[in-house]
Amino acid sequence: MTAALLNPLVTRLSPPPIPAVQAWGKDYNGSFGPLIDLSQAVPGYPPHPDMLRWLGEAASSLAYTNYGAIEGEADLREAYAAHVCELYRANISGANIHVTSGCNQAFICAVMAVAKAGDTVLMTDPFYFNHETTLSMLGIKTGLVECGAAKGFVPTVEAVEEALTPGVRALALVTPNNPTGAIYPPAQLQAIFDVCRKNAIWLILDETYRDFLPSDFGVPHGLLSEENWQDHLIQLYSFSKSFCIPGHRLGALTAGENVVEEIAKIMDNLQICAPRAAQGAVARALPALAEWRAGNRLEIEARAQALSENMTDLGGWRLEALGAYFAFVRHPFEDRASAEVAEHLAKEAGILSVPGEYFGAGQKQFLRFAFANANAGTIRQLRGRMLDLKL
Amino acid sequence: MTAALLNPLVTRLSPPPIPAVQAWGKDYNGSFGPLIDLSQAVPGYPPHPDMLRWLGEAASSLAYTNYGAIEGEADLREAYAAHVCELYRANISGANIHVTSGCNQAFICAVMAVAKAGDTVLMTDPFYFNHETTLSMLGIKTGLVECGAAKGFVPTVEAVEEALTPGVRALALVTPNNPTGAIYPPAQLQAIFDVCRKNAIWLILDETYRDFLPSDFGVPHGLLSEENWQDHLIQLYSFSKSFCIPGHRLGALTAGENVVEEIAKIMDNLQICAPRAAQGAVARALPALAEWRAGNRLEIEARAQALSENMTDLGGWRLEALGAYFAFVRHPFEDRASAEVAEHLAKEAGILSVPGEYFGAGQKQFLRFAFANANAGTIRQLRGRMLDLKL
Repeated sequence: MTAALLNPLVTRLSPPPIPAVQAWGKDYNGSFGPLIDLSQAVPGYPPHPDMLRWLGEAASSLAYTNYGAIEGEADLREAYAAHVCELYRANISGANIHVTSGCNQAFICAVMAVAKAGDTVLMTDPFYFNHETTLSMLGIKTGLVECGAAKGFVPTVEAVEEALTPGVRALALVTPNNPTGAIYPPAQLQAIFDVCRKNAIWLILDETYRDFLPSDFGVPHGLLSEENWQDHLIQLYSFSKSFCIPGHRLGALTAGENVVEEIAKIMDNLQICAPRAAQGAVARALPALAEWRAGNRLEIEARAQALSENMTDLGGWRLEALGAYFAFVRHPFEDRASAEVAEHLAKEAGILSVPGEYFGAGQKQFLRFAFANANAGTIRQLRGRMLDLKL
Repeated sequence: MTAALLNPLVTRLSPPPIPAVQAWGKDYNGSFGPLIDLSQAVPGYPPHPDMLRWLGEAASSLAYTNYGAIEGEADLREAYAAHVCELYRANISGANIHVTSGCNQAFICAVMAVAKAGDTVLMTDPFYFNHETTLSMLGIKTGLVECGAAKGFVPTVEAVEEALTPGVRALALVTPNNPTGAIYPPAQLQAIFDVCRKNAIWLILDETYRDFLPSDFGVPHGLLSEENWQDHLIQLYSFSKSFCIPGHRLGALTAGENVVEEIAKIMDNLQICAPRAAQGAVARALPALAEWRAGNRLEIEARAQALSENMTDLGGWRLEALGAYFAFVRHPFEDRASAEVAEHLAKEAGILSVPGEYFGAGQKQFLRFAFANANAGTIRQLRGRMLDLKL
């Protein structure tokens, strides 16, 4: 019997990159000390004990065993809306919030709400690889907004305008950026949002790492206070990094009420509702652990500082961008692709990083370091290992 | 500024039906006693106390806070594979299992693995509405296999063959069926599977309700023991009903190892991995609560018996099919659509059911009763309320 066919949009995708990178680490012989994992972005410290307690209380409660509201638990939607209002000095409500099972799910919900197979969605180059594979498996075409080292990996209005073609339905941006760490200035976001409005396309703004903006940064942007922002903006967020609970899979999106209603249709098909118990726990944690999160922000800033010092005069290595959770690092092996360098760095030096080319074919000179995973002491161990690397 | 456009494949979908049905219940004045909710399929009894305890232990543990394996926790994949082996007398392994966040997610994963926009997937008529909306929002065309009351809502080989057209990539079946409750005999599933193999299409077999097959039913089918079943079969399951934990969103699919690998790519984009803590808890519960689940199966059988008695000589109402969780009931108002009847039944008699037409345009004479939601005592209260209904 002939085997039935698989979907070529899926079979042509590379396997998920993180497990492949982590496999390299298994071949490291430990000669420089323990493996330093700067691959997948995971908080390098545990959740607050109260967070674990609230998660346990909610999960063992009868109250969360049944199906919940598709859009999310009312208490979490309210608590998160209040947080968004405060953070952005905006005026939104729980009806503007849809809870999702992590920010990747928020992204696919947003994309499906605005684009179908054959449409085009723009990403930056470099891009977050799951954005690319998500669009690709849906048959949505991708266009790239050039976003190179020369301008600090921040997209310009001109680059966005150049990438606009008739089939474009949305522009997806990530700030603070994954993979580069670049932080998009509020005025730049405003200017790009104006381009989106003028061209009647959506801005899908992924702010997974916003809680790790520098502590003196102020309001991340003013887009949620723009008149009729609901017609052009869908904003994404993750509770994973801020509360150190990625395994509980919780994210949220902020959008116009009519967009939230469309996304509820999508979510109903994707999984009916996000898991409920963690929603109840995070609704408690959002106001209660604000101070703890502020402390973590300072800790991550210290780590960024440590990495910055580590990278000063480090042979041919160069720190090209640094912010929030990530650094984008130029490697010194000009004739070698980043996948080869990253594999070598993992196996020989015990440092796991993600090759730049996973974020775009033109990024072969770079590695992404998820520096926030490691404390300052560990980060100081990078120097010797990197200096010694031969290829 | 012109608002950016939404995806017409999504905007044209009706809002999710269950919340709409539940809204009718709010207009019931309580004159016949408490509302009887037979709309969404939810277990009408609580989870086992150990289940809640294990959920709480896992959720409050540091062990599950980080990202997990995309395919699912190893212990759950192994425990579930062992369960599948025993239940179907089959020989599969944990590598054949992919854990998902509920069975709707298992379905969209299976569908995306085998079909893209423009392809066709066959469903029965009547169908489970989320299958229809899932395919529709992905731009996948649907074909219908006629499956009416005359043959007990079980598809025939001829009906499947008639529905086959060149673009068909898969046939999606649900047994025990949602909405009708019809149980497909093993020999019939075998015959239909042979048609799928002969035509090189996939059989996507949703067995969410299999734990509520009659206790003397035996092996649900032998498909997982067929040679090269991996080339034509993807089997879906939900932990929600059996363990009474739909709010924790956990399901699984069983497929060939290469299909599991493709689905891991899809899941990575959908949400990286299913929530982990509940996986750990269910891995413990699967073997430990076997006896408790067997007891529930008997309880649901008793409820089916109570409904069957309730429906005997009940004016013009007729029980057309009954099995596992659902009954498909013919209403006596021949000139009225089921949505009108269901709304009336909810508001006047305090009985929530789902209109047949939500499961296919040709099903206007029927209502779906999720009878397993209610105990035998409550089911006996249906009779008076239904007899008195005027339209």
